Amino acid sequence: MNNKNSEELIVGIDLGGTKILAGVFNRNYECLGTGKKKTQAGLTPDMIIERIVVCVQEALESSKHEIEHIRAIGIGSPGSIDTDRGMVLFAGNLGWKNVPLKEELERRLNKPVSVGNDCNVATLGVYHVEYKARPEQMACFFLGTGIGGGLILNRQLYTGPGHTAFEIGHMVLQIDGPECTSGIRGTWEALASRQAITRQIVQAVEKGRETVLTEISKKGLSKIKSRILARALMMEDELVREVITEASRITGIALANVINILNIQQLVLGGGLIEALEEFMLPVIRKSAEEHSFPGAFTGVKINATRLADDAGITGAAVLAGGNPSRD
Amino acid sequence: MNNKNSEELIVGIDLGGTKILAGVFNRNYECLGTGKKKTQAGLTPDMIIERIVVCVQEALESSKHEIEHIRAIGIGSPGSIDTDRGMVLFAGNLGWKNVPLKEELERRLNKPVSVGNDCNVATLGVYHVEYKARPEQMACFFLGTGIGGGLILNRQLYTGPGHTAFEIGHMVLQIDGPECTSGIRGTWEALASRQAITRQIVQAVEKGRETVLTEISKKGLSKIKSRILARALMMEDELVREVITEASRITGIALANVINILNIQQLVLGGGLIEALEEFMLPVIRKSAEEHSFPGAFTGVKINATRLADDAGITGAAVLAGGNPSRD
Repeated sequence: MNNKNSEELIVGIDLGGTKILAGVFNRNYECLGTGKKKTQAGLTPDMIIERIVVCVQEALESSKHEIEHIRAIGIGSPGSIDTDRGMVLFAGNLGWKNVPLKEELERRLNKPVSVGNDCNVATLGVYHVEYKARPEQMACFFLGTGIGGGLILNRQLYTGPGHTAFEIGHMVLQIDGPECTSGIRGTWEALASRQAITRQIVQAVEKGRETVLTEISKKGLSKIKSRILARALMMEDELVREVITEASRITGIALANVINILNIQQLVLGGGLIEALEEFMLPVIRKSAEEHSFPGAFTGVKINATRLADDAGITGAAVLAGGNPSRD
Repeated sequence: MNNKNSEELIVGIDLGGTKILAGVFNRNYECLGTGKKKTQAGLTPDMIIERIVVCVQEALESSKHEIEHIRAIGIGSPGSIDTDRGMVLFAGNLGWKNVPLKEELERRLNKPVSVGNDCNVATLGVYHVEYKARPEQMACFFLGTGIGGGLILNRQLYTGPGHTAFEIGHMVLQIDGPECTSGIRGTWEALASRQAITRQIVQAVEKGRETVLTEISKKGLSKIKSRILARALMMEDELVREVITEASRITGIALANVINILNIQQLVLGGGLIEALEEFMLPVIRKSAEEHSFPGAFTGVKINATRLADDAGITGAAVLAGGNPSRD
């Protein structure tokens, strides 16, 4: 590891709608240094790609390594990805369409780049680095502004013939319910994402309900952060308690559907909402998942929160580029 | 095939809640003869197993073969099955609990017996005998009194670590909706099975709606057969049209969930409801599935009805016992 002449380090990048994270990893997927840059809607793909490069350089500096020591680079991007060509076909929250991310990064950094969907990539990180016993099947669910996930079947990431598998946030749970970003009604994302929770709180306040959020959420009710929701819960805010309880119950039903369909026994939750509200949400999620599981199917089921937190994305991106730890 | 001294034939048995079917198959899974017996709730496991044996003998006679020509026997049973031990752990509509079906049939017929879940077994039949091109992934859905299915992933039947996978009828589509037999609310089965359709029709009639079913359904409104529903549609019955259209739309949403979760491109529908109402239901199902699929995920998707009809079960049971055609 300390032989600085060998190319054995890996860079993992997590490209999000509001920030870019990069990490330098050794072959045991221990993080040696990170970089972080803000991003925002309105930037051109070129500007974002430049920020990614700066972020990688920052991570290298913080790890006290040079680009020469890097063997490969992995990146998780939101949206639909053509993983073979490393092309972001469509990413709504970046405003991207057909961006050749692999090509652009390889040209600038002169290292092989692998591109994957952000939730799939984070799932790889959780599976290979956090769950070293590697259960045969596992499903990860990331709850934040939206809801996404990744699926491990037979110890492999399952993406399906068209690489669109496990668009789990778009699973319908309430026929003719509220619409989500994809235009489908009554999806899990439309019912229980942070965006959905925010909408429900705003609507309740419009109808006259009171909440401490009107005081403690500095940016107003339409931009409530997960940790502000956690603070409201600690302040015993009744409206927030109701809305988060219902979102947790619905999340349990979503997990039960996955349990009933795929007999998955290890389910892992992550994302900003879970990170901030795990203690409150997880017991409700577990109870609801059990109640909605087919008799027998809940046997052996474990529902946990990931310990990788915000690092799941960069860790998984490193695994995507560096290969499964077991193969080394 | 005509060498009656060799043991190369296979018997497939389909054990249902109201009838038992058996078929004798050659190694190309062509059916050489069948037997059929009625069954009903209230019979002891021993009485039903005796009827299965009689049914096998009937199939042998009709195929002009003897038990000596049989290499193996497969049987699909409703309920939860321990496939390793050939034990029916629980089958509600038979009233069975822990019935050692494999052991009992092997003792009586003196041939190796394999036992599987009826819907999984029927899926094997559809996949190996009807879809000879064998797509890498396929999902089958059987719509009748209840709703069940089977899943092929990487060209193998996927049953999961606890063999409970693809309890697809118990997928929740309408949180807090009507209850199904498993006690879970708002499941696909509770919304769109023949039992659900019947319940909706009875409720509408109680509220004063008119329907030709009150005249043409001889056994009354609580026991409407699928082909009676088809007749009512042909007679342009408005209530039946409404209820079946909605059940088809809901079925399309269920299929879209499977498409969004697993990126399955070949979906096959079967069961009594589809057999009788395919022409009316399939276009509605296809449209609804497309509307509820994540953008991109519907690419390449085919939704068809099986041509094996009532023979899917016995054919699949023969495949279960005899092995994949490709392996021979």
